[in-house]
Amino acid sequence: MIYMAKEPRQINLLPKDLPKQWYNIIPDLPEPLPQPKGDMSNMAKAMIKECLGQEQSLERWIDIPEELQEIYQQIGRPRPLFRAKNMEKFLETPAKLYYKAEGLFSPTGSHKINTAIAQAYYAKKEGFEKLVTETGAGQWGTALSCAARLLGLKSTVYWVRAVYQWKEARRNFMKLYGAEVFASPSQNTKTGRELLKENPNHPGSLGIAISEGLEDAISDEKAVYCLGSVLNHVLLHQTIIGLETKKQFEMLDGYPDVVISCLGGGSNFGGLALPFLGDVLKKGGKVKFIAAQSQAAPNLQGEYRYNFADYAEFTPQLKMYTLGHQKEMPPIFGDGLRYHGCSPIISLLRDKGYIDTIAYPLDEKYVFEAAKLFLQLEGFLPAPESAYSIAAAIDEAKKSKEAGKTQTILFNISGHGFMDMEGYKQVLGL
Amino acid sequence: MIYMAKEPRQINLLPKDLPKQWYNIIPDLPEPLPQPKGDMSNMAKAMIKECLGQEQSLERWIDIPEELQEIYQQIGRPRPLFRAKNMEKFLETPAKLYYKAEGLFSPTGSHKINTAIAQAYYAKKEGFEKLVTETGAGQWGTALSCAARLLGLKSTVYWVRAVYQWKEARRNFMKLYGAEVFASPSQNTKTGRELLKENPNHPGSLGIAISEGLEDAISDEKAVYCLGSVLNHVLLHQTIIGLETKKQFEMLDGYPDVVISCLGGGSNFGGLALPFLGDVLKKGGKVKFIAAQSQAAPNLQGEYRYNFADYAEFTPQLKMYTLGHQKEMPPIFGDGLRYHGCSPIISLLRDKGYIDTIAYPLDEKYVFEAAKLFLQLEGFLPAPESAYSIAAAIDEAKKSKEAGKTQTILFNISGHGFMDMEGYKQVLGL
Repeated sequence: MIYMAKEPRQINLLPKDLPKQWYNIIPDLPEPLPQPKGDMSNMAKAMIKECLGQEQSLERWIDIPEELQEIYQQIGRPRPLFRAKNMEKFLETPAKLYYKAEGLFSPTGSHKINTAIAQAYYAKKEGFEKLVTETGAGQWGTALSCAARLLGLKSTVYWVRAVYQWKEARRNFMKLYGAEVFASPSQNTKTGRELLKENPNHPGSLGIAISEGLEDAISDEKAVYCLGSVLNHVLLHQTIIGLETKKQFEMLDGYPDVVISCLGGGSNFGGLALPFLGDVLKKGGKVKFIAAQSQAAPNLQGEYRYNFADYAEFTPQLKMYTLGHQKEMPPIFGDGLRYHGCSPIISLLRDKGYIDTIAYPLDEKYVFEAAKLFLQLEGFLPAPESAYSIAAAIDEAKKSKEAGKTQTILFNISGHGFMDMEGYKQVLGL
Repeated sequence: MIYMAKEPRQINLLPKDLPKQWYNIIPDLPEPLPQPKGDMSNMAKAMIKECLGQEQSLERWIDIPEELQEIYQQIGRPRPLFRAKNMEKFLETPAKLYYKAEGLFSPTGSHKINTAIAQAYYAKKEGFEKLVTETGAGQWGTALSCAARLLGLKSTVYWVRAVYQWKEARRNFMKLYGAEVFASPSQNTKTGRELLKENPNHPGSLGIAISEGLEDAISDEKAVYCLGSVLNHVLLHQTIIGLETKKQFEMLDGYPDVVISCLGGGSNFGGLALPFLGDVLKKGGKVKFIAAQSQAAPNLQGEYRYNFADYAEFTPQLKMYTLGHQKEMPPIFGDGLRYHGCSPIISLLRDKGYIDTIAYPLDEKYVFEAAKLFLQLEGFLPAPESAYSIAAAIDEAKKSKEAGKTQTILFNISGHGFMDMEGYKQVLGL
């Protein structure tokens, strides 16, 4: 069933239309962003200076260095915006559905590469030789491995053991880029060794992996620690997603009424939503922002308070929505959504009522069925995390139908699922 | 090491620049294309009428129906052309290297989707309800499963057993699109049953799978058989690759001196090369065309003669370069290159001296090392088949260096490797 219409199926930009600056929402926030609290020395030692500066910046627009613009081109930016016409037809909704093909065309399979290459670029400029990080689902670890290699740097990845063990293809993918990959907790750090002493089969967590990575980076002066989500500079780099998408809507002479993405730490959600949220903050207007989460880690439904970003309390405390930094969260295939806390920027906007949240059940049937429907109607294979975006977009499209309301729904496909077929197999019983 | 220059890294087109017609090279060939010989009745019964017509057409330009243009947009066309600057720098070559990201951004992971959606479109117009086919590496089977589903049709895939068994992720991918997938030889056909009687663990071959698919399609009047390579109409649909690439070179005010792609049956090679070969045939000029093959199936180094396209002799005989239709070919990871014969169009042009060929060793070390180099320098993960294109492009870039000759080398990345990490693991020992 092909839906014929005059509107284009795909809206793309040319490389020359690539944004030249990232958008920093901090100066436009309704009140000053609460500062981190506690011992900053570990972070200050472990991190890239330029990124620490961006973390605090009050400049609304921050230049993307020319060389980095070129690397954005190399990794396939700008990325297309698609009209999901077959889904509209199937759902019999008066809503228009648009999705940003963010992760579908990414070399490493997700949006994470957008900040990975920025961090690798600055790290290299500052003379570092090795990038160290943690990873959960594996998307961030892959992105940083790729970025390090593209810039001629080494990389070390601490990967949550429960995921490391069964994602062999992704593990080999990171190694192919030249990364050194450890299952976390590992014997490589004090934090890891202590946890393994208690439980030799410890499944690990993102918080633990962050602790190990920080410990590793602090002990090696040529190494620097990179974070893939939560922090302000990460969201800043990711705004390239939403900035492109805004230009694409300008070409359509349209604007979204609803903006949806999945949310773990907040980087793909923020990347898509912040440029639109900035419009709302500056000019008013009614746009609904929905973060699609898992009941395994519905952090935006937690408490808004100061909390550590990692398990072992290496990081300062951030004011954020959190489930508690030592919270145990059940495993899900959408592992990128399994983090206890949410970005301070998103958290403040949530506290002020700008962001809604929905959390889908642990068995993931509903979201994988949504992803399957998307695949069968639109052709592309989403990552398990992106299945949550799709489920929320379908829910909104159904509400539009019930209300008989024409509206424009934008959602992000932050990753592809080519390396995540195990989730489809187990949840859908293929 | 980032190579800075003023030339763009990526050359893209807008959806409005999508070709509106395919290029049919047959009227421009140096002599009439030899006709198929023998019993045409099986093919006539089993195939799509519009495709049979295109097979014989002498029209130079064939319109792409508007609805199909829209589906080309839906699957992400046009696709970018990239300048592989990091490779140029690493190889210290005066050559300019460009690659078409054909399979990297494809929903099913390869160029095969270009003809799959065309065939599904025509099949539906002619009232068929089910598409039947064979597949070797699995790329064609996935593409047809996707295309069938996008057009609301059913699909059945006969998959060479030796590959079916270990490619679980790809098998589930096809099923997720709704396809019925059989390991071939299967119990589903007479051909299959006879072969399994001789050898219950028969590994299968592309020729056998074609025989089974044809038998299935002929026995069901609502079913139609679709072929993914070799035939004229398949190459016709694939010319969208080269037509886009020609426009991209026009934007650069350039033209390739060398055009390279891997070759099994000839569809991605033909898709990229035929629009450029047409220029040479019409206007003269020196462009070198290189087909990158495996020593497992160096069909362009075989004999130019009439031969069957399938194992069980269901098809008519085609005048083509062939190794013999019952030739046993050793398994390789670049399984899409493992076919005994080559497209009649490419074969004729080979016979007339327009196409060079190189065949890489069975152990695949050289080509996987080339793919790894590409990954580490350019970021994207190629399919095993595309590793052959890259190896040939590197060889040519090295020759340019030795000769001190500035030339423009174009190669095609016909597929991505996200579902083929096993090959990287085993060949490179990850």
